[in-house]
Amino acid sequence: MPEISKKGIAMPASPIRRLTPFADLAKKNGKKIYHLNIGQPDIATPEIMLDAVKNIDFTVWAYTASEGTESYRNKLTEYYNALGYNITSDQIIVTNGGSEAISFAMQSCLDSGDEIIIPEPFYANYNGFACMADVVIKPILSTIENGFALPPISEFEKSITEKTKAIFICNPNNPTGYLYSRDELEILRDLCIKHDLYLFSDEAYREFCYDGREFVSPMHLDGIEEQVVVLDTVSKRYSACGARLGCLITKNQKVYQVALKFAQARLSPPLVAQIAGEAAVDTPTSYFQQVKDEYTQRRNLLADGLNGIPGVKCPIPGGAFYIVAQLPIDDADDFCQWMLEKFEYNNETVMLAPATGFYSTDGEGKNEVRLAYVLNQDDLKKALVCLEKGLEAYQNTH
Amino acid sequence: MPEISKKGIAMPASPIRRLTPFADLAKKNGKKIYHLNIGQPDIATPEIMLDAVKNIDFTVWAYTASEGTESYRNKLTEYYNALGYNITSDQIIVTNGGSEAISFAMQSCLDSGDEIIIPEPFYANYNGFACMADVVIKPILSTIENGFALPPISEFEKSITEKTKAIFICNPNNPTGYLYSRDELEILRDLCIKHDLYLFSDEAYREFCYDGREFVSPMHLDGIEEQVVVLDTVSKRYSACGARLGCLITKNQKVYQVALKFAQARLSPPLVAQIAGEAAVDTPTSYFQQVKDEYTQRRNLLADGLNGIPGVKCPIPGGAFYIVAQLPIDDADDFCQWMLEKFEYNNETVMLAPATGFYSTDGEGKNEVRLAYVLNQDDLKKALVCLEKGLEAYQNTH
Ligand SMILES: Cc1ncc(COP(=O)(O)O)c(C=O)c1O
Ligand SMILES: Cc1ncc(COP(=O)(O)O)c(C=O)c1O
Repeated sequence: MPEISKKGIAMPASPIRRLTPFADLAKKNGKKIYHLNIGQPDIATPEIMLDAVKNIDFTVWAYTASEGTESYRNKLTEYYNALGYNITSDQIIVTNGGSEAISFAMQSCLDSGDEIIIPEPFYANYNGFACMADVVIKPILSTIENGFALPPISEFEKSITEKTKAIFICNPNNPTGYLYSRDELEILRDLCIKHDLYLFSDEAYREFCYDGREFVSPMHLDGIEEQVVVLDTVSKRYSACGARLGCLITKNQKVYQVALKFAQARLSPPLVAQIAGEAAVDTPTSYFQQVKDEYTQRRNLLADGLNGIPGVKCPIPGGAFYIVAQLPIDDADDFCQWMLEKFEYNNETVMLAPATGFYSTDGEGKNEVRLAYVLNQDDLKKALVCLEKGLEAYQNTH
Repeated sequence: MPEISKKGIAMPASPIRRLTPFADLAKKNGKKIYHLNIGQPDIATPEIMLDAVKNIDFTVWAYTASEGTESYRNKLTEYYNALGYNITSDQIIVTNGGSEAISFAMQSCLDSGDEIIIPEPFYANYNGFACMADVVIKPILSTIENGFALPPISEFEKSITEKTKAIFICNPNNPTGYLYSRDELEILRDLCIKHDLYLFSDEAYREFCYDGREFVSPMHLDGIEEQVVVLDTVSKRYSACGARLGCLITKNQKVYQVALKFAQARLSPPLVAQIAGEAAVDTPTSYFQQVKDEYTQRRNLLADGLNGIPGVKCPIPGGAFYIVAQLPIDDADDFCQWMLEKFEYNNETVMLAPATGFYSTDGEGKNEVRLAYVLNQDDLKKALVCLEKGLEAYQNTH
């Protein structure tokens, strides 16, 4: 029998999925589960977007240009320029989700063995894309004590080697919800200029900034235009994860041309999603206001609730729809599994994501979990009660 | 300025696109172009499939399972088992087009520096996926004189090294249209068993077999079940290239589990395409009969027309919708460019794909072109006249 590839063996399994069999079993046994473990929003997709799908009027479902249709890229340009990105449509490559944009960026800018610095905890699938590109992730620890703010620049300096090619941020952050300030971004900009590094900016959660705080992108900063690659997606913006529509944006024409070759090899991004994505740019601001209000309320409810549980501590994040919380336990992996396997309160339980999966440094985050506030407030309240009872019971038996 | 990756530089540009700027210029100058250069069918997508898109009734456009929805995989299983593949739904991973399935197969089964044997000429984008996986393609020459039949097995034996991990076929073939016989497939099966190799089978054109000939897949053969990976797509089957919906099929659970990790990293294939793809399985056979009749007529018209032009020679392919023809010239790259830049007949010209892009061996295919019969018969006739005039004029001036 031929063997599978070493790369395939090395490829990290998604940490979130480790618990799925336990959840399946719990469900089979009739337990109700509050899913705070995944970033699939429950928010309705804008009608203008779904209507565009229902109103398709082509007869041949054809390929589009590999970089995306001209009309979608033009419309996207309007969207980004309203944010002050100052780009042209030929600086955008439309991708199969933000996921593919991340892959293209790594493959276009880094070679086998090259290094990329990412503040941890970080979105776990970066590990998979790094494995595919044979790129090494060098994590820099951000801590819950500091609310997951940008680690001191001296830590970055210490990690930079000859092989370092890029710094990768996710802003607002998944899993921490941290929103970088303009000052922090300027520090990173200066560092990238000093060491001649790319700055990859994953902006999947751009729309979700709270408390009136402004979103700042490296695209807003002067002097680093040629080094920035933005990785974006409509997945969270319009609650359209299943559209598989993202894009890569760069003003660096060399990077663009190389990324385009990767895009051409896979021919085309999805046509219907592009039609819908084009329509979605006209989503009324009232939609976002409503969604942001809802998320803000949920965040407050969840953060207050968590901080009210004895021994639980969490910062109040400025963006995205995640919270990382510290629990009064030693092993969140075990606790999360136990909640599914052994615990129930009124025949209900809560599913959380152990934070270890988001840290690349062994041993970090062992008493932390990530919670996604993608449930309505009533359910969040019930989930909080359930979690408090669970923690009590776990501490009594462990 | 940071550098782009060496891999990005090495990444082959799509050969078909080299001529695009010349085509754009010709169009700008008011010339009409008959596009025989690309595999974008003009055939209507089945209504049942487009209706499924128009009738979507979800409110949240959500992720699906990374391996595809259960209901789509179940329906696909019906489709494949009607063909005699004898598979279960958990042997299918739904992908972003057949393109992604090819990538997953290479990444799951081959490591950096491993070799894969492919009869040439072959679909040019295999080069791109091989580059991304850092895999080496070893071409084996099939010739127009033999109608692009399977090269002698001795040629394969000669090419096999310690690094060889797979043989890759495309059946029916793009670019040659060649349809492998059961005998040829059995020869390949025996070879793969003898040398412990994977057999990758790209079946994008399965539905398009002519003259009553049967389609045989490695999935139909005994004794090689664990070594076969099928790469499939709805792009051509339902003329739904823009859906970006394909799949990888394997009975090898190790390969499946590894490919699933790659699938999980990119989260999900497109939801609407899966809904449409599920509906499409019920496309009436009358649709395919009509399409096959149309393609058969076009093939006959084109092959007869080509063979009727002085000095032009082409085999009559058994499947797909491509023909590779030999022209009475020395440099098809130059000729194809000249047809766009310098030639017109009644202000019209023809765009062809030079065959060199489909050969990996330098110097092969220099007097060959690929033609896709994706135009209606009237246009094909006009294109043939135009090509004949063009060849005459080119020969007179070169
Ligand atoms: C930080 C981050 N980046 C990228 C993605 C990828 O999203 P998609 O491929 O759906 O666009 C996600 C999805 O959860 C994410 O959280
Ligand atoms: C032989 C072959 N394989 C795979 C593909 C990829 O098709 P898609 O990604 O649209 O499924 C094509 C497209 O032309 C093809 O000709």
